[in-house]
Amino acid sequence: MIPERLELPEPSQAVLRAARALLRRKGRRAARRFLAEGPQAIREALKLPGTVETVFFRWSAVHDHVDLLTAARAADVPCYALSEQNLATITDTVTPQGVVAVCRALDLSLSDALADDPQLVVVCAQIRDPGNAGTVIRCADAFGADAVILSSDSVEVYNPKTVRASVGSIFHLPVVTGVDLAEAIDACRTAGLQVFATDGEAGTELTDLADRLAEPTAWVMGNESWGLPTEHLQLADTTVAVPIYGAAESLNLATAAAVCLYASASAQHTAHPVE
Amino acid sequence: MIPERLELPEPSQAVLRAARALLRRKGRRAARRFLAEGPQAIREALKLPGTVETVFFRWSAVHDHVDLLTAARAADVPCYALSEQNLATITDTVTPQGVVAVCRALDLSLSDALADDPQLVVVCAQIRDPGNAGTVIRCADAFGADAVILSSDSVEVYNPKTVRASVGSIFHLPVVTGVDLAEAIDACRTAGLQVFATDGEAGTELTDLADRLAEPTAWVMGNESWGLPTEHLQLADTTVAVPIYGAAESLNLATAAAVCLYASASAQHTAHPVE
Repeated sequence: MIPERLELPEPSQAVLRAARALLRRKGRRAARRFLAEGPQAIREALKLPGTVETVFFRWSAVHDHVDLLTAARAADVPCYALSEQNLATITDTVTPQGVVAVCRALDLSLSDALADDPQLVVVCAQIRDPGNAGTVIRCADAFGADAVILSSDSVEVYNPKTVRASVGSIFHLPVVTGVDLAEAIDACRTAGLQVFATDGEAGTELTDLADRLAEPTAWVMGNESWGLPTEHLQLADTTVAVPIYGAAESLNLATAAAVCLYASASAQHTAHPVE
Repeated sequence: MIPERLELPEPSQAVLRAARALLRRKGRRAARRFLAEGPQAIREALKLPGTVETVFFRWSAVHDHVDLLTAARAADVPCYALSEQNLATITDTVTPQGVVAVCRALDLSLSDALADDPQLVVVCAQIRDPGNAGTVIRCADAFGADAVILSSDSVEVYNPKTVRASVGSIFHLPVVTGVDLAEAIDACRTAGLQVFATDGEAGTELTDLADRLAEPTAWVMGNESWGLPTEHLQLADTTVAVPIYGAAESLNLATAAAVCLYASASAQHTAHPVE
């Protein structure tokens, strides 16, 4: 017996079809919508007014997500319940978490993202793995970055794997996509940020930066496999290596980003503590 | 026309069947062997005498991996060539890199791993995701850790996903598995290491540790989802939080490990520089 307040309509075939189209990049581009999956991502999305358009609950999961249902209803967001089979058609995971939302694309311009005196920004050049991109966005959020910029030849930020790996962080800070790398770096510099680019071969190590780490900084991170080409490294004020003390050739992109962002954020917060 | 020096025999069905059995945990346990895939991992494995038992090359890839073939022959390791279809039966990836090796299990006792005055050790409690485990091993290697210990209820280190994510690092430093967590922590303390356990709720932040970071340290990292339970946190000398300056609830395990290991390793190397 479902309590009356948890009773939800089933979506029409048209509503379901529109959501299903968002599993494909083409569909996301055309509709300017994307899918967010799982309670944590949707909870964060609902905090951004106007972002969530529809929430789909698996019948058997409605009672587990009463908080989401309440928040969605309070925001006048239509909610539907559907079978496990139907839910599976609007998610690309093997074990869907029982709740999926359609979200409006969080389009933001470079100038808007950098408007408010930024202290820490991440610029990803040619990041290609969706999971990596999501993890970098999560790290940027954790270390209090003001924005993440993905260059024009990077993975699409609304890829379901990216959204999932960001664990809701995509809704916490501005993520700007499709920007030419040189333009992004220019904009960062104009916004008062020094520009550090990571490069395993750089003569300057992260540990050599000392007081410079506390200054407003944009970190430019290269591709997972080939890093940053010379012409991109030259756009930075300083190229910086994360020191490798052991036998590994390199770190993966997300762990390198985490270390650089931690180094900057902890230096900035030590230099300018927030009460 | 294949140059004579690159001509290789095809493996017998028995040899192939034995390799194929290593795709499953049961087979790995029974044979005390595992599979390493891709040139980088195999190159590193060949540097550890007695580790690589057999190397399989895709016919069409032999000429791309002449360095591996030369190294394997120099070590008297049998090498075979086989079709793409046959190679696909001994790898779990969709795009095999054209070379797979059978390796002997790198079994090492806890006391051996900690025998040589360790300065930095990672202890993973109940790490369950194979990719995470491999990435943590790669980070530990990058930051010059002396050993990685996986508690008895962790993922199997010879899982192909773990081996792959370690990008050869599994062959660079001792990885001890199947150890009770309390026993692992005791052994670290006996080896002269202070024991830090990560916990998002801890009152001490990584940035508060100052000079203590340069001391010999074991970092205990908890499970991806539920972290470390209270009874495990109590085994540590100090529980430590990676500071979160933004809105994300937490970091993922591998990025948190990277930050903690970087903090220790950079402090240790600054305090005791190696010429």
